[in-house]
Amino acid sequence: MPVALVILAAGQGTRMKSDLPKVLHRVAHAPLLAHAMRAGATLSPDRTVVVMGHGADAVADAAHEIDGDAHVVIQTERKGTAHAVDQARDALKDFDGDVVVLYGDTPFIRPETLDSMVAARATHDIVILGFDAADPGRYGRLVTDGDRLDRIVEFKDATDEERAITLCNSGVLACDAATLFDLIAGVGNDNASGEYYLTDIVALARERGLSATAVTCDEVETMGVNSRADLATAEAVFQRRARAALLDAGVTLLAPETVFLSHDTVIGRDAVIEQNVVFGPGVTVETGALIHPFTHLEHCHVSRGAEIGPFTRLRPGAELAENVKVGNFVEIKNSEIAAGAKVNHLSYVGDASVGERANIGAGTITCNYDGVMKHRTTIGADAFIGSDTMLVAPVTVGNRAMTASGAVITADVEDGALAMARTPQQNKPGRAIRLMEMLRAKKARRDQETG
Amino acid sequence: MPVALVILAAGQGTRMKSDLPKVLHRVAHAPLLAHAMRAGATLSPDRTVVVMGHGADAVADAAHEIDGDAHVVIQTERKGTAHAVDQARDALKDFDGDVVVLYGDTPFIRPETLDSMVAARATHDIVILGFDAADPGRYGRLVTDGDRLDRIVEFKDATDEERAITLCNSGVLACDAATLFDLIAGVGNDNASGEYYLTDIVALARERGLSATAVTCDEVETMGVNSRADLATAEAVFQRRARAALLDAGVTLLAPETVFLSHDTVIGRDAVIEQNVVFGPGVTVETGALIHPFTHLEHCHVSRGAEIGPFTRLRPGAELAENVKVGNFVEIKNSEIAAGAKVNHLSYVGDASVGERANIGAGTITCNYDGVMKHRTTIGADAFIGSDTMLVAPVTVGNRAMTASGAVITADVEDGALAMARTPQQNKPGRAIRLMEMLRAKKARRDQETG
Amino acid sequence: MPVALVILAAGQGTRMKSDLPKVLHRVAHAPLLAHAMRAGATLSPDRTVVVMGHGADAVADAAHEIDGDAHVVIQTERKGTAHAVDQARDALKDFDGDVVVLYGDTPFIRPETLDSMVAARATHDIVILGFDAADPGRYGRLVTDGDRLDRIVEFKDATDEERAITLCNSGVLACDAATLFDLIAGVGNDNASGEYYLTDIVALARERGLSATAVTCDEVETMGVNSRADLATAEAVFQRRARAALLDAGVTLLAPETVFLSHDTVIGRDAVIEQNVVFGPGVTVETGALIHPFTHLEHCHVSRGAEIGPFTRLRPGAELAENVKVGNFVEIKNSEIAAGAKVNHLSYVGDASVGERANIGAGTITCNYDGVMKHRTTIGADAFIGSDTMLVAPVTVGNRAMTASGAVITADVEDGALAMARTPQQNKPGRAIRLMEMLRAKKARRDQETG
Repeated sequence: MPVALVILAAGQGTRMKSDLPKVLHRVAHAPLLAHAMRAGATLSPDRTVVVMGHGADAVADAAHEIDGDAHVVIQTERKGTAHAVDQARDALKDFDGDVVVLYGDTPFIRPETLDSMVAARATHDIVILGFDAADPGRYGRLVTDGDRLDRIVEFKDATDEERAITLCNSGVLACDAATLFDLIAGVGNDNASGEYYLTDIVALARERGLSATAVTCDEVETMGVNSRADLATAEAVFQRRARAALLDAGVTLLAPETVFLSHDTVIGRDAVIEQNVVFGPGVTVETGALIHPFTHLEHCHVSRGAEIGPFTRLRPGAELAENVKVGNFVEIKNSEIAAGAKVNHLSYVGDASVGERANIGAGTITCNYDGVMKHRTTIGADAFIGSDTMLVAPVTVGNRAMTASGAVITADVEDGALAMARTPQQNKPGRAIRLMEMLRAKKARRDQETG
Repeated sequence: MPVALVILAAGQGTRMKSDLPKVLHRVAHAPLLAHAMRAGATLSPDRTVVVMGHGADAVADAAHEIDGDAHVVIQTERKGTAHAVDQARDALKDFDGDVVVLYGDTPFIRPETLDSMVAARATHDIVILGFDAADPGRYGRLVTDGDRLDRIVEFKDATDEERAITLCNSGVLACDAATLFDLIAGVGNDNASGEYYLTDIVALARERGLSATAVTCDEVETMGVNSRADLATAEAVFQRRARAALLDAGVTLLAPETVFLSHDTVIGRDAVIEQNVVFGPGVTVETGALIHPFTHLEHCHVSRGAEIGPFTRLRPGAELAENVKVGNFVEIKNSEIAAGAKVNHLSYVGDASVGERANIGAGTITCNYDGVMKHRTTIGADAFIGSDTMLVAPVTVGNRAMTASGAVITADVEDGALAMARTPQQNKPGRAIRLMEMLRAKKARRDQETG
Repeated sequence: MPVALVILAAGQGTRMKSDLPKVLHRVAHAPLLAHAMRAGATLSPDRTVVVMGHGADAVADAAHEIDGDAHVVIQTERKGTAHAVDQARDALKDFDGDVVVLYGDTPFIRPETLDSMVAARATHDIVILGFDAADPGRYGRLVTDGDRLDRIVEFKDATDEERAITLCNSGVLACDAATLFDLIAGVGNDNASGEYYLTDIVALARERGLSATAVTCDEVETMGVNSRADLATAEAVFQRRARAALLDAGVTLLAPETVFLSHDTVIGRDAVIEQNVVFGPGVTVETGALIHPFTHLEHCHVSRGAEIGPFTRLRPGAELAENVKVGNFVEIKNSEIAAGAKVNHLSYVGDASVGERANIGAGTITCNYDGVMKHRTTIGADAFIGSDTMLVAPVTVGNRAMTASGAVITADVEDGALAMARTPQQNKPGRAIRLMEMLRAKKARRDQETG
């Protein structure tokens, strides 16, 4: 049976106190909406409809960035969840199959859970996702009889007996498209807030002799984000899961609680990640790499046997080959560092290629920006770049070439050549002592004047 | 009714194992004493008396730094809390109003709690602050009858029934000044430790037909600090509260547990604070600013739209205007960075003014110290400072001026001028290869000799 | 009674998913095996036998690094714990005394616990270490009668009554050597896995009329490491204990949960360790030192009154004397920094001696590596090293000498002399503006061509 997703992403998120639409707030560097869409995508849907409201343009852009084929529809008025789903009616009018309704602010539903819901559709007309709540509070309760879902009762309408039920309504559901829109047409808004509730279709279905069932998941899967505190909690949930998965896969995390992963971080077995390492998006680390504390990585690749940090920043496009070493107070950006090369201290390597086994001295800077354009630096294999070398790009230093400390390199250096640009040292005997005496006297006068 | 504070700050704090007086240990960069005095200050007291003992000079200095008008009195002998309060008798002899007794090692009492205590004075002669203890242990118990406090019973004297009471004595109290000192005069020291206990005034009051009542607060409010472990716990309590308040105000904290705030940190809505950011005292961050991981800030200002870090240190006097960018391994001190200026990599900017949209190249250093005095550097709007420029202060680089990579700038550069100070590059063909061969041969000889 | 240790370290640790033998994985920078061996060493054993299997060479090297006199024996086949202990039979054939059997993957047994076990040997033939399990799960249960241990019953063979017992078997035991090997000879492998279990000696002992008893310890002491998650938990346990011990000793940790200690970290009273400080092995910090956030230390010494960080890295051999200051983005390696010297910003000091009160300017680099060998730099007392000075080692700068900003120092500088190496600055009026215009025009052309 083909599947379509309807993802409700119109919520304003007033409690976020933010100018950014709620579903665009991020967990592990991906918008909440992306987490929801990716969960749904594991069902290989034929069509995905995102229902947007608040901040629609930005939300539409984000939706298309995640799935270029997503349909975006706008809910201009906010009249409840049934009304929101109804906005997808046109986009699905020629669709024959099951609709799964998800929420853009609910990032953690597992693929297995969605599979179970779709599977349960074989035997029931409507499948509702429920969760066993530790503290059910004011959630709607699922009243079941065996595997049959009798009804969903709102907390305020529930009897004491019903309130004792801990299986609660997540709002996520699966239903045949035709049936879903047919039922929605029958939902009324005769309630305190005057809204059309999606939940009401279960009662309507029952009146028409249709069957419903509940699939149960962990409470954390249905966790929604409504405030910055919720967002921080969601981030923590993500990190806890992601760290545990890495440990299971044979990665050493010295202090897992200090390692922050992105939604797409990939780390190989027997890699060691020490304390306080922050992964931005787009990072892969191969087997046996060693990452020391206080390291920040984004959109980069660290190969087998490489050693990074402490105090290293790898920016987008940093490609580190095997056994590369990058040390403290070093920034690498948009550069390939070939096998065995070393950049150990206080350097900026940007828009560069560094050859195999090259040694980049402390204080080296690729002067890649002339104020208008960026230019590339090429450093050959086995090159030795002296400390405090300025490489004014575009420039090439050849294989086995060398630059002297403090040199400003503006012209290419041939293979095996030594490039120098240095003023001879002059020592002025006694001058330091006289200079200090002069400065101290000057200060004393100044202090006297101002004092 | 006017209010006076008496703050007991004489405790030696033996368990701190410290040379620093206990009340001067810090939570969120303010001494414990400051937290207690600031809580009391919300009552707008007419007079504040700090009773000091151990390390009196340092404590007096700290008290006056917080409140220049505070009276400081010294308890030369340590004879108990009633004796300590009695040291304030002279300082309050012409004071007609209520006295609130606080403790210098108890940082978390909320203003609302103190308001309730003062309000309760309208109907009772003595108001004691109690707390519902999760584990009452050996605390003194408050025996109440309705809103009347009958007596305070020490744990060791308590019956089993009294020990079952969870409402415990915090020691904080409010009482009319004349009554308080009158009652204290009647307190004896006929007990195991030979001390005069403030608590005893409740029993004395009852004998004289005066009324007492208890106001209840959260246990955490009355938490005292007696050891380094307590201090760490108090810090954690402060941080938890302060982070939650920021989240409520619409600030994003990616991982709140890794962000450390000061007692006076101010952050605007929709600012994003990533992981591992440490705020020292005196920092304000405006709306929409973005602070990346591994950033350390003290006494500085970050304006709207600015982007800082990772690996940035903002030191006292760093004033960042709108949309400024400060990047990795950069230190800014006592400098104004105008709107849109960028200091992206490996730089030290101290005692400087940087103009709008100026670009400070990697490795730039303001040489502000000549060994005796500090001098200022001025950089104009739209200036382009080449990589590894040394700006030997005092010096001015004009608007739209430029410095070449590696230049040591000792003289002013006019608007629009290019300043250079560079030795021409010379390439020595084959020299690098010969040099390496020579060095390797030398090493081989040395290894042979020493091996 | 003399004591010998048998430490079982042959486990493959499949669940670690690692190429490294399990007992070589590290907690607080020491292999698990070292923790176990050091715990055992507090008994002053006459002989220590380490039974190895998987990765024997590496394990043997590690064992000898910890204790050069350790006997290492190899269990070529894996036939259970009794078989493993039996491998030590030859190494102990002339040993007359007590054998204590420990496990290489169990790092936290306290010396006091081992003392109790050895003491209990005075009255019983076999002493088993048990622990009260919060969740006994499938552990073997110790069935006791008073201080007599009747038998150890495996979970699967236990009655409901026996399963209710919470005293569980740790596997650690003490027994006279002759008796131990005698009993082991009688252990069979008639069980589901076909292995020889050490535990079975208790039943055999009972058959022979020997007596057994159990000594009880905290559950955490017997915690074994079988997965990366266990390893992370063990690290957390170690850190929690070590931080608490420092707080007790009068050290301030602003946020203990962010300070990571090594197995051998030593910190003096009234030192203040701020947030996010990582101690590698071999660090001592004296009284009253102050370590700011984001600092990384290994094999170094920080003296009384020194102030380090934020963003400082002290590498092996950094020896900081009293009142030294090391600031942000500074790396110190294999160097002595004398009292009162300062290295405040963006510097690399390696293989150097820095004299008293010397001031090392921002951007200073000791160019200690010529591509083949390392050389030393010597800086005198009260020297003033200007910003961006390159010290091309071997080189000496004298007392009260000074180097000018940007100088590359290749020759020694005498006491009191000023060394310069600088090209005069030239200002080209209007050139910056023309250069920018030219670059912008070039970019516009390029954009047009490629657009």
